[in-house]
Amino acid sequence: MSDPLELLCRSSLTTRSKYSGLYTPRCHSEKEHAGPCAEFPFLSELTQSNPRVAQKIKRDSTMTTGAAWKSEDAGPNRILRWVMLENDKTLKDFGLNMKNLKPGVIAKLREKAASYDDCVRVALGLTVKAYNMPDAPRISDELKDYFQAIGFVLNSGSTCCEICRIPLSFDLFENAQRGKAEIETCHKDPRCHSPDNVGFAHRECNIAQGAKSLEEFYNWIQGILDRAGRT
Amino acid sequence: MSDPLELLCRSSLTTRSKYSGLYTPRCHSEKEHAGPCAEFPFLSELTQSNPRVAQKIKRDSTMTTGAAWKSEDAGPNRILRWVMLENDKTLKDFGLNMKNLKPGVIAKLREKAASYDDCVRVALGLTVKAYNMPDAPRISDELKDYFQAIGFVLNSGSTCCEICRIPLSFDLFENAQRGKAEIETCHKDPRCHSPDNVGFAHRECNIAQGAKSLEEFYNWIQGILDRAGRT
Repeated sequence: MSDPLELLCRSSLTTRSKYSGLYTPRCHSEKEHAGPCAEFPFLSELTQSNPRVAQKIKRDSTMTTGAAWKSEDAGPNRILRWVMLENDKTLKDFGLNMKNLKPGVIAKLREKAASYDDCVRVALGLTVKAYNMPDAPRISDELKDYFQAIGFVLNSGSTCCEICRIPLSFDLFENAQRGKAEIETCHKDPRCHSPDNVGFAHRECNIAQGAKSLEEFYNWIQGILDRAGRT
Repeated sequence: MSDPLELLCRSSLTTRSKYSGLYTPRCHSEKEHAGPCAEFPFLSELTQSNPRVAQKIKRDSTMTTGAAWKSEDAGPNRILRWVMLENDKTLKDFGLNMKNLKPGVIAKLREKAASYDDCVRVALGLTVKAYNMPDAPRISDELKDYFQAIGFVLNSGSTCCEICRIPLSFDLFENAQRGKAEIETCHKDPRCHSPDNVGFAHRECNIAQGAKSLEEFYNWIQGILDRAGRT
């Protein structure tokens, strides 16, 4: 698959983000599109039909996720992933003093760093995966054409939990137990934020995988079954 | 195995617990023991050598565990397991208004209910399992005789994680990441608080098992490996 971003407008946009000096947001409408530029035009239909799902895709694509951070030295709960690519001196200029954080928190934040472009690629991939769920909302022909033109395959019903491989119902996005949605964004390799590596999973599967890569997780549970005499 | 409690003193003790009207604490020294009666004499050596481990065994045996309960209607975080056997009216007399709690919290509290005697049996079983870890502290000949007389087998190095079946190091009790010990008490069947059903597990294994029984967990991960093409 060639880089989908090369096939899009990519005009620079202005941002009111406090980190505007650190990155240039870009337009991701198709090349020579009509109308105004937009950063996440591929999420606009989902923003209408299922705003919480659209927000989740944008948030999980672009922001670091927080653990259950409670202490004062635990650092920001969520921050733009590409800001975490900057060195300590630059971050300090932006009011983030990494030296005050615990080593484990620093490692966790740094591990989730990703470039702006990678985050947009992940957002594109997750949006297609959401539309490929068996009971996803309808996608317009225009949006379908948009995705297909940049190399993504629309194939209704093809999205499975990346971990347990059972087809994922779009309905689960709205189900929530104790405030936790039943679908989470997951990383096959927790240290890599790219569209091939990021997908959706059942919350219980994602919790079971923990900090392991999917490969490590499969090997781990195989070992459990072997030792428990189940194989 | 006959009931270990039948072989112990069982004289009634007094308690200053606010729930004293609901149960009679008893002495669990051997029959016709010398010296004063004691409720958990089998934990006294561990209380000297590793007080946090002794406290953990007593707490996990006798108290319900809390989820990450934060809201006002989430109920008590920990409460004596046998108090949760009482009906709503009795609990209300003790200031616990179950009707104010969410259904999920009530179910969770009621599921963890267990009789006083079952909790003592679990405490005995967990203490033996702790001493059977490969690097456990020394156990005196007197305490070894006590356990063997009531039917427990001391077999150094035999305690494994109940879930992954890897031998469990006693050292892991003291290791803690973000305040969470690396060994947790676990239930093969989450709804049954008996010595055969309760043991120790790695924290990550216990998290992966979640609310499933061990049998359900093994079947679940077998299904994952099957669908992932790993078997």
